[in-house]
Amino acid sequence: MQNWKVTLSYDGTEFHGWQVQPEHATVQGTLAEAIQHVTGERVLPQGSGRTDAGVHALGQVASFALAAPIPAANLMRALNRSLPPSVRVLAAHKAAPEFHARHDARAKTYEYRIYRGEICPPWLARYVYALNWPLDFDAMQQAAQAVCGEHDFSSFAASDPDLKTRGEGEPVCHVRTIFQSSWSREGDLLVYRVRGSGFLHHMVRNLAGTFLDVGRGHIAAEALPQVMAARSRSAAGPTAPARGLFLASVEYDQEGQP
Amino acid sequence: MQNWKVTLSYDGTEFHGWQVQPEHATVQGTLAEAIQHVTGERVLPQGSGRTDAGVHALGQVASFALAAPIPAANLMRALNRSLPPSVRVLAAHKAAPEFHARHDARAKTYEYRIYRGEICPPWLARYVYALNWPLDFDAMQQAAQAVCGEHDFSSFAASDPDLKTRGEGEPVCHVRTIFQSSWSREGDLLVYRVRGSGFLHHMVRNLAGTFLDVGRGHIAAEALPQVMAARSRSAAGPTAPARGLFLASVEYDQEGQP
Repeated sequence: MQNWKVTLSYDGTEFHGWQVQPEHATVQGTLAEAIQHVTGERVLPQGSGRTDAGVHALGQVASFALAAPIPAANLMRALNRSLPPSVRVLAAHKAAPEFHARHDARAKTYEYRIYRGEICPPWLARYVYALNWPLDFDAMQQAAQAVCGEHDFSSFAASDPDLKTRGEGEPVCHVRTIFQSSWSREGDLLVYRVRGSGFLHHMVRNLAGTFLDVGRGHIAAEALPQVMAARSRSAAGPTAPARGLFLASVEYDQEGQP
Repeated sequence: MQNWKVTLSYDGTEFHGWQVQPEHATVQGTLAEAIQHVTGERVLPQGSGRTDAGVHALGQVASFALAAPIPAANLMRALNRSLPPSVRVLAAHKAAPEFHARHDARAKTYEYRIYRGEICPPWLARYVYALNWPLDFDAMQQAAQAVCGEHDFSSFAASDPDLKTRGEGEPVCHVRTIFQSSWSREGDLLVYRVRGSGFLHHMVRNLAGTFLDVGRGHIAAEALPQVMAARSRSAAGPTAPARGLFLASVEYDQEGQP
């Protein structure tokens, strides 16, 4: 068996998220079908993490093992011929036998894109949150920087009842480390970029929604430490729409590399 | 009654073209519904011309008359609130009573976009024809320039049996004047831009498909005069896919302007 690491880009609009589901098109399920079409082998590729319905990826990473011997360039080309145009394999590399895209991920970077122009072009509508009201950029930047470091992010975790405990009622740890967190102006876009050790469900969309509330003056930038300390979803702002969110990249230690 | 001229941008992917059809979503029908939602008036906006299913617009123009007095800025904002994100009103102006978006159009410009990179990003897939094989740019440019001027474009007209005659068997005129016709390299894109007095059904896609055949060496650039002289669809190349085509702009004499 050969273990593989593939890097994927996808438009999440028409998928019910990453994770395979009966009856629904998902990115994981679509990739599994393409792998089966190309190699005849039925495998379930493991992603670095799930992305929700409507969330996109510039560089999701997945791993899977195949019995078929196949050169990396051929695997990539054959998968791209089999996949729909909304999913592209950007790279395929042979990986060490123990490599696992989720377990071995050391850091991830997400981008959240806000369109600031008056009229959002139809070709961007699926990929941005169009928001034309005034925003205090400096306050949003200050708030974004306040979440850097190791914190309990319960205030930014989706309040999914089924995610509050794991197994026998053991509480899920909500502590994560954020390495970088900042906004930048890029043409007609405002982009929030966050790099961290890992992210809770909805965490980036809840951070973005909270920073937008700061930008509108509904939450003070100075209040971010209290919002985190409250460890309560209701202390933070709303969940920003999925369509503005991109999983930009996933980082691994050397052993994950070919 | 006040006559209106609106400029529209749209993503044609999920529409069955411009022209209203029972049972199918069309741009004209969607705009009519938005106008009715905003004003209560049932009108059929007249476009500068039809666009086919999957064809996009950067600047389609439509005209319609309304009884309701409404400031132009309010009409534009209200239509954009009512329309889906795939259709945007870029401008709305009061027009002279006799203005008609189709009858008064003096020139139109179309763009056809080819993606030349190795892997087409998912967010461009709906808006380009991804074509990775070698193309002779200079030959394509020479062929594009050969169609400038007044010509019978029968070789590039869709072979729709119902369009060959008009009314009582009168043959449709296939003579059109092309003012500008050229290819340009724009980053990872090759863009064909053509400005003319008017265009036959499928004409731009048939021109693009023929120039791509020239780029691949299947048709000689020097053969374009013979291709036109043949006045036969089979003398030209294939119809390029709808998704690469954009109606870029429509020009009017002064009376069409506010």
